[in-house]
Amino acid sequence: MIATPYLLYLGHSNDEAGIKTSRGLAVFRPEICVGEFRHDDCGLTLGLPRMDFAGAFAAGARTLILGVANAGGKLGDDLVTDAVAAMEAGLDIASGLHQRLKDEPRLVETARRLGRTLHDVRDPQPGIPVGNGKPRAGKRLLAVGTDCSVGKMYTTLCLAHALARRGIKADFRATGQTGILVAGSGVPLDAVVADFISGAIEQLSPARDDGGWDLIEGQGSLFHPSFAGVSTGLLHGAQPDALVLCHDPARRHMRGLPHFGLPGLVECLEANLQVARLTNPQVRAVGVALNTSSLSEGEALALCARTADDLCLPCSDPYRFGVETILDMLLDERAIPAAKAMA
Amino acid sequence: MIATPYLLYLGHSNDEAGIKTSRGLAVFRPEICVGEFRHDDCGLTLGLPRMDFAGAFAAGARTLILGVANAGGKLGDDLVTDAVAAMEAGLDIASGLHQRLKDEPRLVETARRLGRTLHDVRDPQPGIPVGNGKPRAGKRLLAVGTDCSVGKMYTTLCLAHALARRGIKADFRATGQTGILVAGSGVPLDAVVADFISGAIEQLSPARDDGGWDLIEGQGSLFHPSFAGVSTGLLHGAQPDALVLCHDPARRHMRGLPHFGLPGLVECLEANLQVARLTNPQVRAVGVALNTSSLSEGEALALCARTADDLCLPCSDPYRFGVETILDMLLDERAIPAAKAMA
Repeated sequence: MIATPYLLYLGHSNDEAGIKTSRGLAVFRPEICVGEFRHDDCGLTLGLPRMDFAGAFAAGARTLILGVANAGGKLGDDLVTDAVAAMEAGLDIASGLHQRLKDEPRLVETARRLGRTLHDVRDPQPGIPVGNGKPRAGKRLLAVGTDCSVGKMYTTLCLAHALARRGIKADFRATGQTGILVAGSGVPLDAVVADFISGAIEQLSPARDDGGWDLIEGQGSLFHPSFAGVSTGLLHGAQPDALVLCHDPARRHMRGLPHFGLPGLVECLEANLQVARLTNPQVRAVGVALNTSSLSEGEALALCARTADDLCLPCSDPYRFGVETILDMLLDERAIPAAKAMA
Repeated sequence: MIATPYLLYLGHSNDEAGIKTSRGLAVFRPEICVGEFRHDDCGLTLGLPRMDFAGAFAAGARTLILGVANAGGKLGDDLVTDAVAAMEAGLDIASGLHQRLKDEPRLVETARRLGRTLHDVRDPQPGIPVGNGKPRAGKRLLAVGTDCSVGKMYTTLCLAHALARRGIKADFRATGQTGILVAGSGVPLDAVVADFISGAIEQLSPARDDGGWDLIEGQGSLFHPSFAGVSTGLLHGAQPDALVLCHDPARRHMRGLPHFGLPGLVECLEANLQVARLTNPQVRAVGVALNTSSLSEGEALALCARTADDLCLPCSDPYRFGVETILDMLLDERAIPAAKAMA
């Protein structure tokens, strides 16, 4: 549906967590990303060639991905001005922001005049049912987190790739805008109407009997006061057999809320298991995934080892060190009683 | 906005919990309800005069309230046919169902042809912010429940009336369609987009410094696998100082889910306190409200006494026996340490 390849937008961003959509695409779909667009005051890069809109179109790009995020998902004047210029240069626009492209008259008028297409990835499809909590066949893993933007999508994608390398069927189930752009389908969970959160996940990850795993991208955190409702409905709809807890050790407060501290890992994992047990009493924790990008390799390895000891679970940085120990725990049936006793 | 007085719709309902909107209006705003409409196969009554649409219009009714509910909030053919007939007889239509009146072409066409108005009470107002969890001034009580439809709105309204009788300022904050029709304003929480659940409650119940209480209507249950995300965001947005736990002792399974059992009262209260502490560590439980309509007076009094003993909290059926003991606990500062020790 969305014309490829992509030009990835960084704009004026100087907050690494704010460009996670653009970075996620650069990392997991590099073959469809020709370049990045950033203003001079942008201190970040994806390592792609820097291009202006005309240069990107000449290099083959067909869609500008507005892969930036902020609390509330507003579409600022700077974004609108840039998107208009991109359309003038020949590009379509895709966005995962809450505020819709189609609700911004300047964008709608420009797209109509030039014959461009506006894609709002965060518009859920119609027909989402109310959740029913009925046990369903198949094996499901859910990534949960101490906070927003701590690596849940990365972890889930790394697990999906690693399972596939072991010859085990595995499907990544996207619940956020980046994941949907990476996977080509999914549900933009935070834009679903509140009564249908768990039902949306039941629909996204239906019963399966082929022995494979559904690997479900988590959202938010039970400990984030803005978004814990989303995380709760996601846990109930996923009926996860396995949880992986994701955490960023460099995070000093909950994302967007300087007055709000992070939960401890044990407290956070136990709360997630407690909520998950409502629809799957057999749920167990199979690992901890740390985003160690702020640490040296030695520090990162030491922290993973210490965390594994503290929680009696495999711990890794999935992107840096792989997920093999977590997969061993996931696939080792003998580990189940021990994990349940720990929980 | 909605023309009064009302004709209350029961239709073909034989499920008491399914007519809670119609009954809530009959109980809490009797002065604006002239009658009820029910088909011959409807085994329920509100005790109002039974009227057809023409008779209701002749008796002064100006709006038919489609005060019935079902899982998913669908607008069936029978409802549409009746609503068209009501408009032919002179009435406007108001509905709190998820499926909107304005999305049903037969209703839109009929309303346009006859000059009638369609009111979708469940459409949230624009401009709801993302929650921020910042502590705010004022005192807030939230009604929580073991399940949906166990008396949270009744309890909250009874508490508001009783506080006012004691000369204490108290505002009922509605979060569901019935409450909104009763109060004249509020937020239809289950129709809010998932990322904005807690923010909607922060907006609904802002800081206050007049010494009064905001009494916030709860929704769903942390133990209902369809709707717990709503309940979680509501707890976080409300920052409640006090919780009242609502329960229907006749309920045998979670509403709409025959395969799903109810939580225990202690387990349910503790889970709610745990979630609430994220945004208000001082939260305490101040009472239990039972819907004893299925019990004799003697049985009801005995159950309230036993429940009070079991939970070390005041317990009453608010509608049947009043809420004075719960108010005493709410307003007695000396009770706080004991309650916190219990929790």
